[in-house]
Amino acid sequence: MKIALDAMGGDQGPELLIDGACCALRKNKELSIILLGPEDLLKKQVEQCADLGSLAQRVFIEHAPETVAMEESPVVAIRKKKNSTIMRGFDLVKNGQADAVVSAGHSGATMAAAIRKLGRLEGVSRPGIASLFPTCKAPVMLMDIGANVDCRPQHLLQFAIMASSCYALLQNRKNPRVGLLSIGSEPGKGNALIKETHELLSQSKLNFAGNVEGRDVYSGDLDVVVCDGFVGNISLKISEGLAEAAMQMLKDEIMKSLQAKIGYLLIRKAFAAFRKRVDYAEYGGAPLLGINGIGIICHGSSSSVAICNAIGEAAKLVENKVNDSIVQSLHQYVTA
Amino acid sequence: MKIALDAMGGDQGPELLIDGACCALRKNKELSIILLGPEDLLKKQVEQCADLGSLAQRVFIEHAPETVAMEESPVVAIRKKKNSTIMRGFDLVKNGQADAVVSAGHSGATMAAAIRKLGRLEGVSRPGIASLFPTCKAPVMLMDIGANVDCRPQHLLQFAIMASSCYALLQNRKNPRVGLLSIGSEPGKGNALIKETHELLSQSKLNFAGNVEGRDVYSGDLDVVVCDGFVGNISLKISEGLAEAAMQMLKDEIMKSLQAKIGYLLIRKAFAAFRKRVDYAEYGGAPLLGINGIGIICHGSSSSVAICNAIGEAAKLVENKVNDSIVQSLHQYVTA
Repeated sequence: MKIALDAMGGDQGPELLIDGACCALRKNKELSIILLGPEDLLKKQVEQCADLGSLAQRVFIEHAPETVAMEESPVVAIRKKKNSTIMRGFDLVKNGQADAVVSAGHSGATMAAAIRKLGRLEGVSRPGIASLFPTCKAPVMLMDIGANVDCRPQHLLQFAIMASSCYALLQNRKNPRVGLLSIGSEPGKGNALIKETHELLSQSKLNFAGNVEGRDVYSGDLDVVVCDGFVGNISLKISEGLAEAAMQMLKDEIMKSLQAKIGYLLIRKAFAAFRKRVDYAEYGGAPLLGINGIGIICHGSSSSVAICNAIGEAAKLVENKVNDSIVQSLHQYVTA
Repeated sequence: MKIALDAMGGDQGPELLIDGACCALRKNKELSIILLGPEDLLKKQVEQCADLGSLAQRVFIEHAPETVAMEESPVVAIRKKKNSTIMRGFDLVKNGQADAVVSAGHSGATMAAAIRKLGRLEGVSRPGIASLFPTCKAPVMLMDIGANVDCRPQHLLQFAIMASSCYALLQNRKNPRVGLLSIGSEPGKGNALIKETHELLSQSKLNFAGNVEGRDVYSGDLDVVVCDGFVGNISLKISEGLAEAAMQMLKDEIMKSLQAKIGYLLIRKAFAAFRKRVDYAEYGGAPLLGINGIGIICHGSSSSVAICNAIGEAAKLVENKVNDSIVQSLHQYVTA
């Protein structure tokens, strides 16, 4: 099993990414990692990595001199930078030299590169990005979180099927409960897109729980929540923004009294455990679903643990042949 | 100044609502409250309210024998229940017997009743619902939070203008900074609706900050954030759901160790202050903007403090003639 890691992606440079790779190699003895990036630079980085030791035998470097910057247009970037880390990564997958790509770089460009190099899975009209979110119970998978801003009902149906297949494999959950994100639970609630999609999902063989509201996302009662990429991306970013603002406000209140400051010292470990639990990066990355291969996008600010988890997740998807399962489900879940 | 209060709205019955009214009457000596609901029931409630004392002189009862249940269709409810609390409330506004209506009942029916009884403001195509959210700095106003699920760019432009006028009055802020909720800050980012709206807002005379992302909503750097009612409602409910789930997860972690439990006792007051700060009900209710009169919707689970604040907010909007300001702005802010 060979996972290609974009060693230049993310806000924090190759060192942290290589740490993540080490962690994944230690966890999974069957795994090799191909680091994507400028050869000279990566060679130096790998040599300097004391942590690596005997793991180094399972680390390879694929020369990819170019990187896509966050502000670049995905379309332009994949046209002009043929030797970027992500383009080279999906080349390797295409040629059978790697089983999956993990990148914390430009997510739009990663998706575009994946589609360009590998194409869509049979029967898929729009590949999308799925992401796991923490809840009080099992995590919930939201799809699409940003690849497709204007969708038709058929696209949302496919998101539901793809995310359902992926969730079942990642979480060992048979027949995941799928909700359609709307503004009320009644079938008639929502915008035009949602009303039509509700009908399609009702007619499918998915375990469809009907329309769900924003507040149901974090309830833990659903396994998959489906929405278009515009709504999904805003849901994701609103959550991030709220979590950050709330932590800041709580900190402000604690800093106002000595008693609360002392209390904070006692509660610190519980706080750290809480932060870890709500940090969705801990759940691994966001799989690109619907492409003819496996790719995982990570948050630009991912920790090495998040990278490690994303590599583990990629391996799990490869091992369990998520794409076979998706193709089969696309046939099976849609009547007519 | 007379504010009509739906004394049957909300999940917790008239007692709590009357408590909220008492609080508002104490704060504002110029204020009278008209309680809307079944006369006999409300008379008894008012008599039993020891808290009321001399304030009772400024409390009136308007007989409204019917209430709209949460599961009723707004359209059917306002057609069949002519004597519901909200219909009678907006009747009073129409006849000049009240200056505004405050309701914690069925928000869709309240909006429908307002439009039916009072009509739209001159120049407004779609009235909407605005709501203040807490941030680390000043609160931010999101509009629309659920009245209009399918919008055209012109509607979003009007939301921006209406919310901007309302925010300026409520928060004493000249020229509020307006953001357009999207999935990236560049003008080309977003779905078809957002791209067209971006152009309209750029050409307007509003203080337009451009596209903003979900995570900017809670940053405190914006005064007004504009979106359609589908996205706005999901943003609101996702926030509620996340806040609840996060508090539960934090509590779970604290309960795992004795040390953290003791810490919690010391930190409790800071926690309570924090909860108050993030409880958007504390900011008052959500004004209906674009109707030819003043109406405020409150959360069904509003506390008496939230009701008190919503009444105060209604009085402020009446006093400052928010609708004159909106009509003027609609003329002024749109070039051509």
